[in-house]
Amino acid sequence: MDTLEVSTDRREQLVDITSDVELRIAAAGLSAGACVLWSAHTTGGLTVNEGADPAVAKDIEDWLASAAPPGRQYRHLEGNSDSHIKAALVGPGLTLVVSGGRLQLGRWQRVFFCEFDGPRTRRVLLQLLPAG
Amino acid sequence: MDTLEVSTDRREQLVDITSDVELRIAAAGLSAGACVLWSAHTTGGLTVNEGADPAVAKDIEDWLASAAPPGRQYRHLEGNSDSHIKAALVGPGLTLVVSGGRLQLGRWQRVFFCEFDGPRTRRVLLQLLPAG
Amino acid sequence: MDTLEVSTDRREQLVDITSDVELRIAAAGLSAGACVLWSAHTTGGLTVNEGADPAVAKDIEDWLASAAPPGRQYRHLEGNSDSHIKAALVGPGLTLVVSGGRLQLGRWQRVFFCEFDGPRTRRVLLQLLPAG
Repeated sequence: MDTLEVSTDRREQLVDITSDVELRIAAAGLSAGACVLWSAHTTGGLTVNEGADPAVAKDIEDWLASAAPPGRQYRHLEGNSDSHIKAALVGPGLTLVVSGGRLQLGRWQRVFFCEFDGPRTRRVLLQLLPAG
Repeated sequence: MDTLEVSTDRREQLVDITSDVELRIAAAGLSAGACVLWSAHTTGGLTVNEGADPAVAKDIEDWLASAAPPGRQYRHLEGNSDSHIKAALVGPGLTLVVSGGRLQLGRWQRVFFCEFDGPRTRRVLLQLLPAG
Repeated sequence: MDTLEVSTDRREQLVDITSDVELRIAAAGLSAGACVLWSAHTTGGLTVNEGADPAVAKDIEDWLASAAPPGRQYRHLEGNSDSHIKAALVGPGLTLVVSGGRLQLGRWQRVFFCEFDGPRTRRVLLQLLPAG
């Protein structure tokens, strides 16, 4: 198992971690299988979406902020229930396909750590699984 | 493949199944790899979030209930379209990291079965995959 | 790694791809493990839900259309920010359980490619992982 560190600058922020994931897969020498990524946090998650135009990540951040605003009345008293809800919506993990020794993503796809209660330093676990 | 049974008490309820998952991994003796969990239901899902304060799970239940209320006008006539929508939002499965013979979760993370059309007895499939 | 092609007819459409997935698993002869599915697109995803009554898939399409309407003010200027947001909500991938040489789904569960910016021809990657 490997661990990636991700530093975030804002309370809500999608951070592109694709290059780091690709480096770890190359270093491990996995030819075919899957790469499991896991956000070890309850107020951050992982998603894959377009990275070419940064406006897409910002639109996703904005949509989530408006769907689950921080100011609403929640039961949890730490002021970050919205962050927990957003993490549940994007999800805590991803299982990515590896083939030919490389991460297989679509042309416009990039892997993002989703920060919903930053800024912080976050940990993403990485586990490689061989194909059958 | 292993199967966990989960009994739910309310129509909408996040049930902490972490200990059961940990027991199965220990019993199987997997040292490193992944644990795939799968909700075999279309009105229930799986998520990971904070378990220390039960108010967080309740806030997630409440947010989903308000985002997809049961009373709205839907096409499906069984009265549980909201349950199907909630299951799609949290997702039907999780792939968890196992390392050092143990489930690798963040400090505050717990695994929850998400009931959206209970109370019922539910099945969660568990499959272990070895690391490369 | 295998690739499925999915043709979609509408801008937003859940397409049942279960039979195709089952055929690939049977052809590969995997007895026990997992089947990773991956949508190679940023405006389409994958989910599992009820397939018996097509109204359920339509209710999910409608709910997403009303939660993230195309007409809203977004930053991304290609007119499909709503499609990217919907893809983030349902998620880009699934890890399905295989046991006894067969895909293990609940009685009412079917696998859907979720089109959010069609009609188009889409690619779903499929990778098989053996159990431990």
